[in-house]
Amino acid sequence: MFLQASKVEVGLPAWLELFGQTYTKSSDIKKRMLFVIAASQKNIQMQTGGPFAAAIFEANSGKLISLGVNLVTNQGLSVLHAEIVAITLAQRKLGSFDLSGHSSLDYELVTSTEPCAMCLGSIPWAGIRRVITGATDSDAREIGFDEGDKPDDWVGGLSLRGIKVINNIQRDEARFVLKSYLKAKGQIYNTDIG
Amino acid sequence: MFLQASKVEVGLPAWLELFGQTYTKSSDIKKRMLFVIAASQKNIQMQTGGPFAAAIFEANSGKLISLGVNLVTNQGLSVLHAEIVAITLAQRKLGSFDLSGHSSLDYELVTSTEPCAMCLGSIPWAGIRRVITGATDSDAREIGFDEGDKPDDWVGGLSLRGIKVINNIQRDEARFVLKSYLKAKGQIYNTDIG
Repeated sequence: MFLQASKVEVGLPAWLELFGQTYTKSSDIKKRMLFVIAASQKNIQMQTGGPFAAAIFEANSGKLISLGVNLVTNQGLSVLHAEIVAITLAQRKLGSFDLSGHSSLDYELVTSTEPCAMCLGSIPWAGIRRVITGATDSDAREIGFDEGDKPDDWVGGLSLRGIKVINNIQRDEARFVLKSYLKAKGQIYNTDIG
Repeated sequence: MFLQASKVEVGLPAWLELFGQTYTKSSDIKKRMLFVIAASQKNIQMQTGGPFAAAIFEANSGKLISLGVNLVTNQGLSVLHAEIVAITLAQRKLGSFDLSGHSSLDYELVTSTEPCAMCLGSIPWAGIRRVITGATDSDAREIGFDEGDKPDDWVGGLSLRGIKVINNIQRDEARFVLKSYLKAKGQIYNTDIG
């Protein structure tokens, strides 16, 4: 007989909220990015997932709404990239599946590495108005991760939807964390799909 | 002070598992698709989300592993497309974030409408070996939904990763359900992102 769960529960690492409390509100997107990169480093150190973090901020004030990290191996679910976790936490906190319709405020996604094809596709549905990225697709590939097949001009595609993208913010720092994951012999999944 | 949830819980409609029990194992992909399309119709009737359903099957035997429906409005989370729900339920049930590594069996995703950009991007990460679709992107757009920006040759892209795609299975029946959602004045979200 067919049987499946009646609900899905995703647990977050206990350190995540405490780490979020170390953030000091800043109007400087570089400082927001350094905070997110530090969370990606912490996710390696605590062995709670891949070397990726992402957060949702109020774009103007810099207020932190949610902080996510990659939980694929930790929770056994392939969709739990850091961006998906951050978007989901923000939507539950603000009570809306469309952050652009929630208030007059603009929300931004700050992610330690450029979004993969799945996370890129999730951005317009979430109602995010700005995306800020650190390490590049090529940096992720350099340590063995696959970013998937994205449209060639994905930045232009988001722009047509009114979503601004700013890439390469603190890229060196973000890439350093990716490389440290490799040194720590962290699990590289999605390496050989074909 | 920063505060966010310590877990995320996604509840499934009570009718979903009972509906899954109405499936009779079949080696015919058309019958699997008709079952999935019927689930999308039921999601409209029960007013539990958008007019989309998806399921994971053992590709050879036709055994049903998981059944998902669109729960965006129901759960207030933009990532909860039917495909994401089905993939997540299958991974929890089988205990692996990579269905291709779980056993020697191949798993397939049957979805009532072609995957949007996000769900397309999620497919390689899930370890699915075959994708079967009903209604097309254009059918979804016809009733006002946005499918996002996908690579032009996404079928070829998946093929390069060893994932076979079969489109237009029972398309007329799937499109009929989409149109019935419009007639029932169901909520069309993600219509005007720009």
